[in-house]
Amino acid sequence: MEKQFVAQIADIESDFPQWFTDVVIKTKLVDYGPVKGTMVIRPYGYAIWENIQNEFNTRFQANGYENAYFPLLIPMSFMTKEAEHVEGFAPEVAVVTHAGGEKLQEPLCVRPTSETIIGTMFGKWVESWRDLPVRMNQWANIMRWEKTTRPFLRTSEFLWQEGHSVFATAEEAETETQKMLEVYEEFAKTCLSMPVLTGRKTEKEKFAGAVATYGMEAMMHDGKSLQSGTSHYLGQNFSKAFDIKFTDKDGAQKYGYTMSFGVSTRLIGALIMTHGDQRGLVLPPVVAPVQVVIVPIAMKKEGVLENCRALANRLKTAGIRVKIDDSDNSPGWKFNEWEMKGVPVRIELGPRDIEAGKMLVCRRDTFEKNEVEMDNAETKIAALLGEIADNMYEKAKERMQKRIVDVKTLDELLSAVDQGNFVRAGWCGCRECEDKVKAFAQATSRVMDKAHTAKSCISCGKEAKHTVFFARAY
Amino acid sequence: MEKQFVAQIADIESDFPQWFTDVVIKTKLVDYGPVKGTMVIRPYGYAIWENIQNEFNTRFQANGYENAYFPLLIPMSFMTKEAEHVEGFAPEVAVVTHAGGEKLQEPLCVRPTSETIIGTMFGKWVESWRDLPVRMNQWANIMRWEKTTRPFLRTSEFLWQEGHSVFATAEEAETETQKMLEVYEEFAKTCLSMPVLTGRKTEKEKFAGAVATYGMEAMMHDGKSLQSGTSHYLGQNFSKAFDIKFTDKDGAQKYGYTMSFGVSTRLIGALIMTHGDQRGLVLPPVVAPVQVVIVPIAMKKEGVLENCRALANRLKTAGIRVKIDDSDNSPGWKFNEWEMKGVPVRIELGPRDIEAGKMLVCRRDTFEKNEVEMDNAETKIAALLGEIADNMYEKAKERMQKRIVDVKTLDELLSAVDQGNFVRAGWCGCRECEDKVKAFAQATSRVMDKAHTAKSCISCGKEAKHTVFFARAY
Repeated sequence: MEKQFVAQIADIESDFPQWFTDVVIKTKLVDYGPVKGTMVIRPYGYAIWENIQNEFNTRFQANGYENAYFPLLIPMSFMTKEAEHVEGFAPEVAVVTHAGGEKLQEPLCVRPTSETIIGTMFGKWVESWRDLPVRMNQWANIMRWEKTTRPFLRTSEFLWQEGHSVFATAEEAETETQKMLEVYEEFAKTCLSMPVLTGRKTEKEKFAGAVATYGMEAMMHDGKSLQSGTSHYLGQNFSKAFDIKFTDKDGAQKYGYTMSFGVSTRLIGALIMTHGDQRGLVLPPVVAPVQVVIVPIAMKKEGVLENCRALANRLKTAGIRVKIDDSDNSPGWKFNEWEMKGVPVRIELGPRDIEAGKMLVCRRDTFEKNEVEMDNAETKIAALLGEIADNMYEKAKERMQKRIVDVKTLDELLSAVDQGNFVRAGWCGCRECEDKVKAFAQATSRVMDKAHTAKSCISCGKEAKHTVFFARAY
Repeated sequence: MEKQFVAQIADIESDFPQWFTDVVIKTKLVDYGPVKGTMVIRPYGYAIWENIQNEFNTRFQANGYENAYFPLLIPMSFMTKEAEHVEGFAPEVAVVTHAGGEKLQEPLCVRPTSETIIGTMFGKWVESWRDLPVRMNQWANIMRWEKTTRPFLRTSEFLWQEGHSVFATAEEAETETQKMLEVYEEFAKTCLSMPVLTGRKTEKEKFAGAVATYGMEAMMHDGKSLQSGTSHYLGQNFSKAFDIKFTDKDGAQKYGYTMSFGVSTRLIGALIMTHGDQRGLVLPPVVAPVQVVIVPIAMKKEGVLENCRALANRLKTAGIRVKIDDSDNSPGWKFNEWEMKGVPVRIELGPRDIEAGKMLVCRRDTFEKNEVEMDNAETKIAALLGEIADNMYEKAKERMQKRIVDVKTLDELLSAVDQGNFVRAGWCGCRECEDKVKAFAQATSRVMDKAHTAKSCISCGKEAKHTVFFARAY
């Protein structure tokens, strides 16, 4: 039984894409929707998303953001008001042409992002410098018609949050762009135990309509990069297109400066591919739907279930998300199932443990098992969950750092990315050289390093204007 | 200044529709979206929705429901699998015909409700009696193309929750249908201070595809009814259309029995029109975004703001949602604004109050003002919020009960609904008589009374099979 269980997941080293598919489907995080490219987020996956939402809501609120909700459908004419924006998104939009039994006068886009519609409303609401800054966030479904899709990573419809704000000055909007990127980075570390690289994106990789895009990139198990969050400084591009004007203290009418930022259900893909192992998911404790599973041993014996329930109640009271698996399956089957589902801590509790006033505590991240005294169980388990989160972060960080390679030639670059590394290299700043790297090594520029250390461009050899992280990416 | 403030809201008695529009727009609950019939839910309105969501999540979880997320787009062919269902919803759907720059092979509906797509997934997931019951809930945006729209009450796009479950037997599914209606009724009472009538809907008014629909109806300020939540027993209609089959304990393949239930952002409209008065909103304390507003008096005087902040912190610690209005506006302006915004409790705190160790506590529901000792402020305010919730409920209940009139003839019925009443009358059960009531008095059957007391049909005079509540409705 146990062997069968493990064997159902493809080999993580030799077939990582299949491993990912096996894991997300078999752990019931997600299923394929009937329309090509769509996904159904099942309860176990959605609970992770809800935990992510809660953590972000706390952070956004602390930064002055209020949640709101804007319409799904955007008139096609709005999209075209910002020239770069429509060029970037038009190929991906889904279009409603008929509604209520009639053909619509103007086709409506299903939002691929909401700068245009939120910009329109901001243009209506903002009048005076007293109204600024405006900071709003929305949790919503988004549609981008993609040719190649994979659950969580790239789907026609996904869930996300998008923050949008308006400031009186460029400096404030630029500072906010950085600040929200830092919020993302701190979240990734604290809540997903996931180290990231952050920095500015090149012109080629920036958001359609932005002045500058900043991103965070995470290294997946196979050494490929996953863009996990972006923050855009939009300058006055959208305020001019959508007439977001205010009367300043000096009485003059001025355009505001806007920025936006977003993360999506892709983060669930990111945490899976950062931490997973051959047995399945390894969930970061902060967002795990079940943090502790209690498996009763010799369940039918008197007092076993009662003791499991008493322990569960103690943990619950301490704010720990705990589940008792009192199903008919064998303990071995349960161990495998909950390991596959990535629950950070398993507690085994049987008659002998109970008699000795102990429990067997098993970590998902290291497979360590320890007999632990029952006294202060809640404090010990809470501390252990913190320790697991830290260990998962350190392990992932060590891997990422080991696999960042400085290279000086395209051949070195190709060889390094072939071996699953990120590379750091100089870049002259021209589009041709960026394209050449991609053509040569199927690697794209991820972010520019804040520390500019490289001397010459990896491609043309001229003076490097930036030091860039290149990688293959999802 | 104060006069101006009040004057901006239309008269609640003589022009209730305009009063509603004025209130929802001026309190910044909502704004009109650019696409006809859509709304933007602004932060003050969205915060109410989030409080509603939290309250429901607790209740749904206690009843075994797990949240999940299903795709927005439904293949047109799914809609047609249940004959009545497609007939009911086809005229209202918005249709995506193009995506990714191409015409789609099959047009896709933007979900008007999700029985068909969730049914399809349940059909895939349910195999054995061990998989039952299935209980899932989703929070989602819904689109129904309506000709006449009003913010919160009827919009092309709205937010809702839809619960869907599958059981092995008809009895279980029927019991669940009732149980979730009771959850709605308890929620309306506890969280919205809103009394409702509940009962079965007539065939004419039931959900397209249901065996039976149960609804809750609330009486608005003008005596019209607002359908505020529905629970549908779907029998095997959807399980047969979507192949939701299971192997029972006896080894036989059987179709499951399904039910579904939903409430929407319409509830925000319901609470506004139940409790509002000439000064604006009167928000039920449980879902009010701000439960207590503290208005500093002589704000610039030493110690005033500090004392306001200390009080706010005490209330916050006790779990009360509190805000200090330290803006530059005059106290009078602030009183009016927060009254319009419906904040249940206003606390005025000035130098004399502080010296006396007191605060002036003002209720939004009764306009009572009391000097209250600062000791145990948090306990007193928490108790007062409970008292306000109860009082709002009792007041609304008394109004509703007074305005339910038993009638025996169509003339009596017309006269009663003209005066803003609900009527209770006998009905033979035939569609013609139901239609006749509507044609004669523009009143529709809302729900059937659980206590069947009427003797003869209001329309044809034959024996009454049901006692029905008729009313004009939103």
